Order: sequence, then C-alpha cells, then structure tokens
Amino acid sequence: MKIYLGRELREANKNSAADNRMMLDRSRVLMVNIIGSPGAGKTALLEQTLRHLSSHLTIAVIEGDLYTDADAKRLRGLCAKVIQINTEGSCHLEAGQIGELLVKENLLHTDIVFVENVGNLVCPAAFDLGEDLRVSLVSVTEGADKPCKYPLTFRDSHACIISKTDLLPYCDFDLDKVTGDLQTINSSLTVFTLSAKSGEGLAKWCRWLEAHVAKKKSALNSGLAVPSRE
Amino acid sequence: MKIYLGRELREANKNSAADNRMMLDRSRVLMVNIIGSPGAGKTALLEQTLRHLSSHLTIAVIEGDLYTDADAKRLRGLCAKVIQINTEGSCHLEAGQIGELLVKENLLHTDIVFVENVGNLVCPAAFDLGEDLRVSLVSVTEGADKPCKYPLTFRDSHACIISKTDLLPYCDFDLDKVTGDLQTINSSLTVFTLSAKSGEGLAKWCRWLEAHVAKKKSALNSGLAVPSRE
Repeated sequence: MKIYLGRELREANKNSAADNRMMLDRSRVLMVNIIGSPGAGKTALLEQTLRHLSSHLTIAVIEGDLYTDADAKRLRGLCAKVIQINTEGSCHLEAGQIGELLVKENLLHTDIVFVENVGNLVCPAAFDLGEDLRVSLVSVTEGADKPCKYPLTFRDSHACIISKTDLLPYCDFDLDKVTGDLQTINSSLTVFTLSAKSGEGLAKWCRWLEAHVAKKKSALNSGLAVPSRE
Repeated sequence: MKIYLGRELREANKNSAADNRMMLDRSRVLMVNIIGSPGAGKTALLEQTLRHLSSHLTIAVIEGDLYTDADAKRLRGLCAKVIQINTEGSCHLEAGQIGELLVKENLLHTDIVFVENVGNLVCPAAFDLGEDLRVSLVSVTEGADKPCKYPLTFRDSHACIISKTDLLPYCDFDLDKVTGDLQTINSSLTVFTLSAKSGEGLAKWCRWLEAHVAKKKSALNSGLAVPSRE
C-alpha cells in the first residue's frame, strides 16, 4: 500500500519549491539539501565543511530534526547562522518551511544555505525544497546494497558522498560495486569518497562547492533585488 | 509541518493490527517486528538468528523493502518461508499487508514470524502491525545520539539491539550513554549488545526469543482453531 499525500499537499510543496528557487536565483545564493540515513554522517560532514569554507564564505545552516537541537548545537559558532526546524515527528522537511526561513532569517544575504534534512533515506527524496544541489550520503558501514535499495534518493541527487571511509578496512563494503551502481542509477552523479574524521576527500568536496558558489554568483538569471525583512 | 495520515487510514491500521494480534494469539504464533535505519544490520541479525533457531523452531520471515528482493534472497533456505513485500516507495509496512499474508501464506502454523520493516527509523514506529514484540536496532556506527533523536521508535519497543559491536574499537560510541538514554526513554526495554559478524551477544538474544516462544505457546488466551487456506 502506498500513501498518497494528496494532490493539494504535493502541489503546494512544488509551488513553494519554485518560489524558493526563484528567490535563491535572484539573490545568487546556493542552497544545498543534504539527505541520508540516521548516522550517515551529515552533521559531521557539515562540521568539517564549515571549518573549511566559513573563513571566506558566508554560510547559514537549516537543521531539520524530529525533536532535538543536538545537531544545531554542534554547528553553532562554525558559520554565520544555524537555524533549527523541529518537525515534531514528521519524517522530512518541506519547501514552505524553508521559504519562510529564507526571508524571515535574512538568509538571502549569504553565499550558501545548507539544509540538513531529517535522517531518513526514503521520504525526503519526494520533497523538492527548491535547492540548487541535492547531496545524498551513504556510509561505508551501511552496506553496498543501499543505492539499489533506495534508488530514488540517488537518482535525484547531484552528488553522492560515500562517507566514513576511515572505517573501510573494517567493513565488507565493495566500493567499486557501489560507485558502479550509483552511475547506473544516475549517470550524471558526482561521487565523492570522504571521511569527516580523517579529512580524506574533504578538500575535493569543498572545491566542488566553491565552484558551484562561483557559478551561481556569475549566473545570468540573477541580479534582482533581494527581499529583506527591513 | 506534520503530515496527518487521516483518521480513516490510522483507524484501519489499528483495526487490522488488532485482528492480527487476535489471530496470532489464537494460533500461539510469536510475531516480531524489526525496525531500524538502512544498514543498521536487520538482515544480518536475521541471518544469524535463523541459523541458531531454525533447527528446532518453524520460522517465517516477511521482508519489507521499497523495490528489491535483495534481503529476501539472503534469507531463503535459512528458514521455512521468506515472503517479500515491496512497498513501491512507501516508507513503512502496514498491519493490513501483514494480516493478508498471515492467512494466505499459512503463517499461523509456524512458531515465529519475523517482520523486517522498511529501513527507516522514523515512520514504521507509527504503525502497529499487531506484533508481540517490537525490536529496534541502532548500530554503533550510527552514533550515540540516536535514541534521543528518534525517541518514539525506542519508547514503543520491547527490546533494542545495539548492533555491530565488532566496530566499537573504531567508533566514538559511548555505550554507557546509549544504554542510559534508552532506559530513560523506556525503562522496561531489554537491551542487547550484539555483533552478527563475530557472534558476540547472539546466544543471549536467541534465548530471549526462545523464552518468548515458550511463553506464547503456554498462553491461556490461545487454543482456538487456526485459519487455513484449505
């Protein structure tokens, strides 16, 4: 049995995502939606990414979590702004929630807005937030079957990070199989292998983000006024 | 924003769960609903559990997965019956799906029915399947914050398995903190630490299951006729 969310709810999310995309394009702000299972390493990735990029880029993070602000606390002080959304049990973030914060929290004056979605490899894939880049994580401890078992998340991503590579020697994880499966599911996917703990692969990932920020800044479809609360 | 599934859908699931519970009680069959993140080790746990118990118990497994039968293939030959449910994108199993299989596949003539839910630490917690025992997994690689971040799953479980303990030396996982948090969330929870890879903790878990099978067999509320397809 499949749960149908109803045309109205899906249509409303689609419209809000389009609004967000328009605002982000006009403001030349890059938004990155990070999706992965609980414990895939999303927050650890953000911690290290912010340490690398915050010296020369203005960054905000929107943290999605069911009930706590544990992840937000880990990131405070590492970037310009960290905002918590508690979904109170809901399994994903929606575009309307993000759009509200983009304006209310003045996030359209930053260079990058990272959104850490609720830890879930299924539901967030169905909700476009209006992001420029969707980045999915799969950790080497989760097993090499995950891309084939959760294909929609990887099909609709721009990049996939194979995380926790420092644990590769202790896991039965076939890296070649996973990268092959990912390319079959989505041939335009950029794949990174990375360990937030050891730092391996982090520089390449940060350069990729910087290139996308530069591309967004120089985009032809932008340049209109940025909405502000004032 | 919270998604409301609608009173009808939730009410229907509740009724189906009650029907399942009645069938299982009458037939003295123990049903175990296994919940955890993608890659928490649910299938590996089942592989080892079936190897220990199938010699003296008749066991069926219902495998929940979005699209594939990869996990069912791993378990075939290890027990009396393995049945695949593909949810086609839906993030959890529902009681009606289980009830249909209990009758159609003659599962009420077994000793244990294991249900491996869709890999997801959020949504399956909201759907009672009529199980006797709900068992949630958290692997040591997921991080010690998971019980506090996903409390409902652990609050409504009878047991929690802290899995992949063979990786403890390589992870920053505070076992005392996690067991303490689990007891705070649910003081009647039975906690197992277990490695399906090394076999550590497996015997204790299997003895717990055997005790519950014996208890179910001797239960006073059972003894009525078992529905059959014939």
